[in-house]
Amino acid sequence: MTADIVAADGIAQPDTGPAVAGAEAAQSRLLRACRREPVDATPIWLMRQAGRYLPEYRALRERHAFLEMVKTPELACEVTLQPLRRFELDAAIIFADILPPLESLGFELEFHEGSGPLILNPLRRAADVAALSASEGDEGWSFTLQAIRLARRELGGGAPLIGFSGAPFTLACYAIQGSGGGDFAVARRFMMNEPRAWHAFMDVLARLVGRYLAAQVAAGAQVLQLFDSWAGLLSPADYREFVLPHSRAALAAVEGSGVPLIHFATGSAGLLELMYEAGGDVIGLDWRVDLEAARRRLGEGVCLQGNLDPVTLLAEPKALEARAVAVLKSAAGRPGHIFNLGHGVLPQTSPDNVRRLVDLVHEWSVGSQGGADG
Amino acid sequence: MTADIVAADGIAQPDTGPAVAGAEAAQSRLLRACRREPVDATPIWLMRQAGRYLPEYRALRERHAFLEMVKTPELACEVTLQPLRRFELDAAIIFADILPPLESLGFELEFHEGSGPLILNPLRRAADVAALSASEGDEGWSFTLQAIRLARRELGGGAPLIGFSGAPFTLACYAIQGSGGGDFAVARRFMMNEPRAWHAFMDVLARLVGRYLAAQVAAGAQVLQLFDSWAGLLSPADYREFVLPHSRAALAAVEGSGVPLIHFATGSAGLLELMYEAGGDVIGLDWRVDLEAARRRLGEGVCLQGNLDPVTLLAEPKALEARAVAVLKSAAGRPGHIFNLGHGVLPQTSPDNVRRLVDLVHEWSVGSQGGADG
Repeated sequence: MTADIVAADGIAQPDTGPAVAGAEAAQSRLLRACRREPVDATPIWLMRQAGRYLPEYRALRERHAFLEMVKTPELACEVTLQPLRRFELDAAIIFADILPPLESLGFELEFHEGSGPLILNPLRRAADVAALSASEGDEGWSFTLQAIRLARRELGGGAPLIGFSGAPFTLACYAIQGSGGGDFAVARRFMMNEPRAWHAFMDVLARLVGRYLAAQVAAGAQVLQLFDSWAGLLSPADYREFVLPHSRAALAAVEGSGVPLIHFATGSAGLLELMYEAGGDVIGLDWRVDLEAARRRLGEGVCLQGNLDPVTLLAEPKALEARAVAVLKSAAGRPGHIFNLGHGVLPQTSPDNVRRLVDLVHEWSVGSQGGADG
Repeated sequence: MTADIVAADGIAQPDTGPAVAGAEAAQSRLLRACRREPVDATPIWLMRQAGRYLPEYRALRERHAFLEMVKTPELACEVTLQPLRRFELDAAIIFADILPPLESLGFELEFHEGSGPLILNPLRRAADVAALSASEGDEGWSFTLQAIRLARRELGGGAPLIGFSGAPFTLACYAIQGSGGGDFAVARRFMMNEPRAWHAFMDVLARLVGRYLAAQVAAGAQVLQLFDSWAGLLSPADYREFVLPHSRAALAAVEGSGVPLIHFATGSAGLLELMYEAGGDVIGLDWRVDLEAARRRLGEGVCLQGNLDPVTLLAEPKALEARAVAVLKSAAGRPGHIFNLGHGVLPQTSPDNVRRLVDLVHEWSVGSQGGADG
C-alpha cells in the first residue's frame, strides 16, 4: 500500500513530499490564474483528462471494475498520473467518482457496465431524511484521501493536484432518483413537493460535502472543484431557493483553507450569477455560454475556467486549432483564465488531439498575459 | 379521406370553413399576444399537448404505429383535437413529426418502438450533399397539410391552429447522425470539419423548411413554430456561423405571410439574442432562463413564450400553482406573453394537472393585461 506501483511505472519526479512540493506548486500557472495573477502561459487541464480515451486507462479497466479502481488508492493514483505522463498539463485531478461519499450516509452504490451508477436504496419519502445515518466517518472517501496522498508524493513539485466533490444538488439527484441520466424528474418532483425534507436532506449533504472537501485539503489537494453536474436542469428561481444556500454552505467549509475553489456546472448559462453568489474563486463555464459575456456578467473579480466544446477534440487539427484560439482570444489575455473543455473529454477522443490542444494553448498564450512577473 | 372520423368522435364546432374561422380566430388571445396586443387573459398552449399523457392518445397508439398516425390525416387531426376537448387551451398544434420532411430529400426514416427515430441512410460525406435529391415535391408533408385542412375545418372559429417545422440545424443533426439523443457528436464534428458541405446542406434544408412552412400557411396554419430542439448543444460562436443564417432564411420564407412566427429552442440561455436576430415574432424560452432576464436582454419588441419547468406538472397542485403564478408574475402582465412549458409535456403527466394549469393561467391573469381593448 505505497506508491511503489506507480513509481515502478516510470514516474520520474523526485519524492520531495508535500511540504516542499506545496511551496513550489504555489508558483504554478494554475494557482496563479485562480488568484487572477499574471502567468507565463494560460494554464490548461481537462475534465476527464484521466479516462477512457487513453489506451493505458482502458488497459487497466480491462482488469479492474470501475469502483475497484476508484477505491484502490494505488490504482486511482496511477490513473490520475496517466495523462500527466503524456501531456504538459498544468494540473492533475484525482481519479475519483462523485457518488461514493453517499455511502457514508447509508446509500448503497453499484456500477454496472454500460448502464452507469445505481443507488439501490434511493431516498423517496420525506420521513426517510430523518433516518439517514449522518455518520461522521470517512468510509465513503478514505480511499480517495489516500490516493490524494500518493498522487501528491508522486507529483512532487510539479503540477498541482485538484480534488473535487459532487455538489449537494447533484448528489441529491442521484440519491433520490436512484440512477443517472435523463431529467431527474423523480428527484426534482421531490424537491417541489417536499420542500422541508428537501432542505433537511440538502443540509445533510452540504455538511457531508464540506467535510469531504476539507479532508481532501488536509490530504494534500491544492485546488478543489465543486461539480454541480445537473444544476443546469433547474430554473434560476429553483436554483436560488433550493440549491444556492446549500452549495454556499459546502463551499464555506473550505473557504478559509487557502485552497482555490472552482465551481462548475453544465447548462448553466442562465445560472452564472447565482453560482457565483453561492461561491467559488473560479467559475467553470460550459461551452454554451460566451466567455466574454460571462466576464461581463460576473465582473473582473472572478477567474473563469473553460470553455471549449468537447466535440472540438473530435475534429480535424485545423478546426480544433481555430476553435481553441477563439476561446483564447475571447479570454483576451487577461489574468484569471484557466483553459478547459466545457465538459469532460469524450471517450472517442484521440490522445493526439489532446496533445495538440495542450501544446497550442501554451504556445499561443506565451506572453499574452504579460509574463509571470506582471 | 374526410373529417368524418373526427366529427363522428363528437367535435361540436360548426364547419364554418377557414375563411370565416380565420377572421374570428384573428381576435384570439394567442394571435393578439403574438402581436403584443393586450388580451383578456394570458393565452396558454403546451408543447406536446397532444401526446402520451392522454389516455385517448395512448388508446389510438395501441392500434397505430407512430408514423402511421403522423401520415394518416384523419388520425393526425384527431390527435390534434384531443387536448382541445379536455382543456380550455388557446391553440391547437398540428400533430406531426419534425423528421418526415427529410424524406423529400431522399432520407429513409424509421421509428422503432422505444428507441426513437432512425435515418437509415445518414449523410456522412461532404460529397453526398451534391447528390441530394432536392425535390420540389411535398411527399414528406402532404399528409400534414391535409391534417391541417381537416383540423382547421373542425376548429372552426375556435382556437387557432399552430403549424411547425424542425429548424435546419435540428434536421441536419438527425440527417447526419442518423439517430437522436445524446450530443450529436457525429453531426457536430461534420459541421466543424466540413464547413462548405455543411453550409451547402443547410442551404438545402433552409429551402426545404421554408417551403414546408409556407405550405402549412397555405393549408390553414395560423401560427408557425420553428423548433430548433438541439440548438442548445452549440456554442454561441458556432450558432452564429453555422446556424443563424439558415434559420433566418427558413423564417424569411414566411415572414411576409402575416402569420406570427415562434422561434423555440431548449438549452438556449446563451443564444437568445442570436435566435432573435435569426427571426421570430415570438421567442420560445425553456425554463432554465429567467423570463424577466430574457425580457431585459431582448427588449420590449418581442413576444415571449414559456416557460414553466415540465416537471412542475408532475408536482402536487400547491407546488404547481405556486410555480405557475411565479411565471405569470415574472411576465408582469405586460402584453406579449404566451404561457407554455419550457419543453414538452412529460408522458407521466396527469391530465388533471394540465387542466389545473390551464384554468389557473386564465383565472389568475384575467384583467392583468388590461383587457382586450387595452
